[in-house]
Amino acid sequence: MSKVPPQIFTPFIRLNKRIATPLYLQLYEQIKQAIFNGQLKEGERMPSTRILAAELSVSRNSVFMAYEQLMLEGFMDGKRGDGTYVCGQLNDATQKNGKTARRRNTLADTIRYKDPSLPQETLLSDSSLEPGLPFQVSVPAIQQFPFKVWARIAAGVYRNIQSLYLGYADTQGYLPLRQALADYLRVNRSINCTPDQILIVNGSRQAINLSAQILLKKGDPCWMEDPGYRTARAAIMRWGGKICPVPLTPYGLDIDYAIQHYPAAKLAYVTPSHQYPLGGALPLAERLKLLQWAAKNQLWLLEDDYDSEFRYNGRPVPALKGFDDKGNVIYIGTFSKVLFPALRIGYMVLPTAAMAQQFKIVKSTIDRQSPVIDQAILTQFMREGHFARHLRRMRTLYKKQQDDLTQLLEKHLHKYITVAPSDTGMHLIGWLKQPCNMPLLLKKANAIGMIIQPVADYCIKFQHPPGLLLGFTGFSYEALEAAVLQLKSLLAQTR
Amino acid sequence: MSKVPPQIFTPFIRLNKRIATPLYLQLYEQIKQAIFNGQLKEGERMPSTRILAAELSVSRNSVFMAYEQLMLEGFMDGKRGDGTYVCGQLNDATQKNGKTARRRNTLADTIRYKDPSLPQETLLSDSSLEPGLPFQVSVPAIQQFPFKVWARIAAGVYRNIQSLYLGYADTQGYLPLRQALADYLRVNRSINCTPDQILIVNGSRQAINLSAQILLKKGDPCWMEDPGYRTARAAIMRWGGKICPVPLTPYGLDIDYAIQHYPAAKLAYVTPSHQYPLGGALPLAERLKLLQWAAKNQLWLLEDDYDSEFRYNGRPVPALKGFDDKGNVIYIGTFSKVLFPALRIGYMVLPTAAMAQQFKIVKSTIDRQSPVIDQAILTQFMREGHFARHLRRMRTLYKKQQDDLTQLLEKHLHKYITVAPSDTGMHLIGWLKQPCNMPLLLKKANAIGMIIQPVADYCIKFQHPPGLLLGFTGFSYEALEAAVLQLKSLLAQTR
Repeated sequence: MSKVPPQIFTPFIRLNKRIATPLYLQLYEQIKQAIFNGQLKEGERMPSTRILAAELSVSRNSVFMAYEQLMLEGFMDGKRGDGTYVCGQLNDATQKNGKTARRRNTLADTIRYKDPSLPQETLLSDSSLEPGLPFQVSVPAIQQFPFKVWARIAAGVYRNIQSLYLGYADTQGYLPLRQALADYLRVNRSINCTPDQILIVNGSRQAINLSAQILLKKGDPCWMEDPGYRTARAAIMRWGGKICPVPLTPYGLDIDYAIQHYPAAKLAYVTPSHQYPLGGALPLAERLKLLQWAAKNQLWLLEDDYDSEFRYNGRPVPALKGFDDKGNVIYIGTFSKVLFPALRIGYMVLPTAAMAQQFKIVKSTIDRQSPVIDQAILTQFMREGHFARHLRRMRTLYKKQQDDLTQLLEKHLHKYITVAPSDTGMHLIGWLKQPCNMPLLLKKANAIGMIIQPVADYCIKFQHPPGLLLGFTGFSYEALEAAVLQLKSLLAQTR
Repeated sequence: MSKVPPQIFTPFIRLNKRIATPLYLQLYEQIKQAIFNGQLKEGERMPSTRILAAELSVSRNSVFMAYEQLMLEGFMDGKRGDGTYVCGQLNDATQKNGKTARRRNTLADTIRYKDPSLPQETLLSDSSLEPGLPFQVSVPAIQQFPFKVWARIAAGVYRNIQSLYLGYADTQGYLPLRQALADYLRVNRSINCTPDQILIVNGSRQAINLSAQILLKKGDPCWMEDPGYRTARAAIMRWGGKICPVPLTPYGLDIDYAIQHYPAAKLAYVTPSHQYPLGGALPLAERLKLLQWAAKNQLWLLEDDYDSEFRYNGRPVPALKGFDDKGNVIYIGTFSKVLFPALRIGYMVLPTAAMAQQFKIVKSTIDRQSPVIDQAILTQFMREGHFARHLRRMRTLYKKQQDDLTQLLEKHLHKYITVAPSDTGMHLIGWLKQPCNMPLLLKKANAIGMIIQPVADYCIKFQHPPGLLLGFTGFSYEALEAAVLQLKSLLAQTR
């Protein structure tokens, strides 16, 4: 570079003193733009701050700040006493940056996540959980949630927010919530555990993922209910587990089959209180058999107790974990169904505090602790008895909605569908009395905004008669009746 | 079983009508306990509901409900007209369940998570982020956060909570927040993106994990700054990436070295705005070189912009993503440092909306959406200008605290430590002028509740002179001075 290069002219710079943007920022932006546009070229010498300030009628300080920032970012290069130059090494990428046109992006276009376990369409399952669509499954009656109470408690938590530690807090979860959970689980699920065995997670999905990540080695055989929860299957496969499909008895997992066919299994994913999606509940004798086998054969039992609270007759069945005196059961619970899904709070009960520490370590590398303020609100909500009250109200409501749907199906659809009574849960299975053109049925249902999921979507290896999952929670009698009549019309069209 | 078995006696049942527990529950519990204790044995016939009700002077309905629950749970087996029996198949596990003694748990004791990339002690890093400990790193001045404003906004969100959808909402994140972020990024980080390129995540850790999971195949070489962010290294290794340590220039990643030694790399984890932990910032020319290489060689650039907001001189440097017209950069931001860590809201900007969809799919299998209410509060906080205002206030505060620490180190520790001035960030590096017994220093610091992390903890392959990370955010001048004097005393003891 010559010592005395020609000074450039700056007619392209137009500063506006009437707008809020500081002059130095306007200058910075316009010089940068001029470099991008090619008006200023590599190696050109910029005017001195004094000269440019005079030319533009601004303070020298404004020019100095703009230059400083441009040098900091590498757009200009300045040496004291030797002037300031437009920086070298600006290349094609810079020149094009100012333009809006974007070329087809080759690398990003290559990204298509392939999950070995799931068809692509079932991964994008947000759409099947849209609010208010008839027969949607597992979405609570959110409009019934006591948000006023929740908001009042939230206001109290916010008033005393200085008492919460809002830094990187304990990854294991807010201790008072773990204490409240231990109390709740002891009374309601017959689980004796201490708060240091509990880990708070972002919903049950994170719990399942953590368990698969920590417990599985590549190729480990895993018992999986068939039909069963697809997200669990995906997580197990993602972490190297080998899926061993186990058929169901009317009560849930066929334990004898599993033992006979896959005796070397390392992990079993089970929903003993309410099999998902068919709804059976394992009797005590089966539970004990499972526990005994697990203890003798070093098998982990991943107990997903996702909606055990919604038992409409009698008390909830004690959890498998309640009988687990050898420590083979990892218990998973969630507030998504009993409060509202957007809360994203779930929890795990690990066999020992030491094992909970190991899970906590891994969670800390994945996303650290779950949000603290919501945990504090939930704790207070439980302590004041609102949680138990809300559960009771929802149990009554859902029982009625289940009865409504059962009656409506019998009234309008007895020609097409058999419904087995169910004591639990948030959906019924409607078994089709005769085969129908299922793809056509689903397509037509989708076209009118109705969500029906076939049982077959949850199957791995074992075939079932055609059946549909029919959610009933959160719908009025009128909405359910309208949906049943719509379904009748669809079934008539697709026999 | 005989048709006419002997009726059992029930002297062990003692019901208390004065306590709140319903009689049927007391009865249920005591019969269950009697089965566990062996007082009731397999095959024994229970009294009829009529007889037991009379014997206990309770309503027949109470007995009926207790029996029903016991049958439901498999403790009893009943056939109409044939009496009710204590259930068979009760085994050892049941007998022991009533006892409190727990044996050493063999399976749970085997669980010790081994992360190939990290020494066990660095995984349990919660302790290094305890509130108020001198020199802790990356913890914002939480007490300065405008919680009153946040609480007021929260109250408003709760008042209109019916307008939020609190079911399983869009996994990609709350749309108004993504819109607010796109605006923020355009103005402050020179990133042009649309809300559909943004994915809301639970902090930057989840973003890094998702990226590694989706982008890496086993054995893919990955550039990693050395020293660099350990959590990123762990995530890359967990998903099969091969770590390629790249030394640093004073500005950050040594791009020439990386290109020369690892030309086949598929992914690079970079902190171009503020190298973590050493603090350099890549000049424009280096950024462009990196982008050009990435575009030509199908290299993903994972840009972690974790505390770019805390730039004390001049404006924040535009993000690498701001110059990325070929779509090789995945941008990661977080609110943990600029608001408060317990919020757990981070975000990613993907090169295309289609690629964001792929990331969303995977997040949906891991934990679904991030909590919605906090996202809505944050959106309003940004829209009302509080976010920008808080950032400005913190920048001023941290600048002062950085100056304070620099002066104090020069005043008291010039014999031991050199501090390089830094324009950015939440900590300084104190370089030791002479070797010290580092393990002893750390042990003594730990004993007095002082957190100092050696630079060596962040190193992979390349050695650095001994240095310490010294956080300054959130400490008063007095607290900083006391800590510096404590450190002086420790250094004197461990020369």
